[in-house]
Amino acid sequence: MELLKEKIRTEGKVLSNAVLKVDTFLNHGIDPVLMKAIGEEFARLLEGKEVTKIVTLESSGIAPAVMTGLVLGVPVVFARKKKSLTLQDNLYTSSVYSFTKQEENAISVAYSHLSKGEKIFIIDDFLANGQAALGLVDIAKQAEAEIVGIGIVIEKAFQDGAKLLKEQGYDVYSLARIASLENGQVTFVEENK
Amino acid sequence: MELLKEKIRTEGKVLSNAVLKVDTFLNHGIDPVLMKAIGEEFARLLEGKEVTKIVTLESSGIAPAVMTGLVLGVPVVFARKKKSLTLQDNLYTSSVYSFTKQEENAISVAYSHLSKGEKIFIIDDFLANGQAALGLVDIAKQAEAEIVGIGIVIEKAFQDGAKLLKEQGYDVYSLARIASLENGQVTFVEENK
Repeated sequence: MELLKEKIRTEGKVLSNAVLKVDTFLNHGIDPVLMKAIGEEFARLLEGKEVTKIVTLESSGIAPAVMTGLVLGVPVVFARKKKSLTLQDNLYTSSVYSFTKQEENAISVAYSHLSKGEKIFIIDDFLANGQAALGLVDIAKQAEAEIVGIGIVIEKAFQDGAKLLKEQGYDVYSLARIASLENGQVTFVEENK
Repeated sequence: MELLKEKIRTEGKVLSNAVLKVDTFLNHGIDPVLMKAIGEEFARLLEGKEVTKIVTLESSGIAPAVMTGLVLGVPVVFARKKKSLTLQDNLYTSSVYSFTKQEENAISVAYSHLSKGEKIFIIDDFLANGQAALGLVDIAKQAEAEIVGIGIVIEKAFQDGAKLLKEQGYDVYSLARIASLENGQVTFVEENK
């Protein structure tokens, strides 16, 4: 997605060979117009496929997920990373390790929010080692929902996440695929148009 | 906002005299079409006022904030509740106690995301005792940003939050004002049309 890549080129900050900061438009600051374009692009990629719900993870997945839900006309549910007073029992849960935050989080979705046979599209902001996406896949499996695909805003293609997900048979739709962050430079995977 | 009140009437679950669960459309499941309508309603209420940025708090503020940003054509920033590896220094921070989660959170916004003189509209999903909104107000003050108003999706008008904010001189725009949750019933504040 050229608009997104351009945004990454101009506003992304390479913090190390593995860490890209995109806090101006995706995971602290949010560019709503770009999010809408992201929703339209996911909808385009899913053309012809039936999706009944978008599933994401708080917090940075919410903006692209809600815009995709708006374009596709389907509801969204976001997995929570912590239990609250109003969301405690009857939960599908899975465990996700965040390398960025260096902590293990239990993520959960209420039983009432995912049903057997639902056709879900999973969305997350980043795909690196795939931990978050695999946690959402685990929850979907517990619910016996059907995973139509996994939509990623920014894939770090030099890490294993996409490979792991594809090996398990899932379609991964990444809007920007980064081949390398070496030498402080963002290099995208060359795509065949 | 009648559409929102109708949604609360039909899908909200009264858990106690103080707790309303709206997890089907706002803070676990999200209804993107309703969020868009909420964005349009905030934009209508702000007509004639200049806003340069929407400021909210993760996670449940993000969906209404992003839709409002889309309608107004302005960027969004969400305060984070925890520090991450890519967001550590140069932060405005404030402390917010959550009665729902029974915990104190440090919330933070990067210096680079709020500037002196910016005209911000603060959005949050719930207003009860006003802790979260006051935390965002505190951050805005540190940044010397101008607070155009505070937009709330659901106000628990039987708690003190709106009063506290108004006493400090802020305009509060609540889309649904709940007078009482007693006897398991949602009673809205009667508004003059």
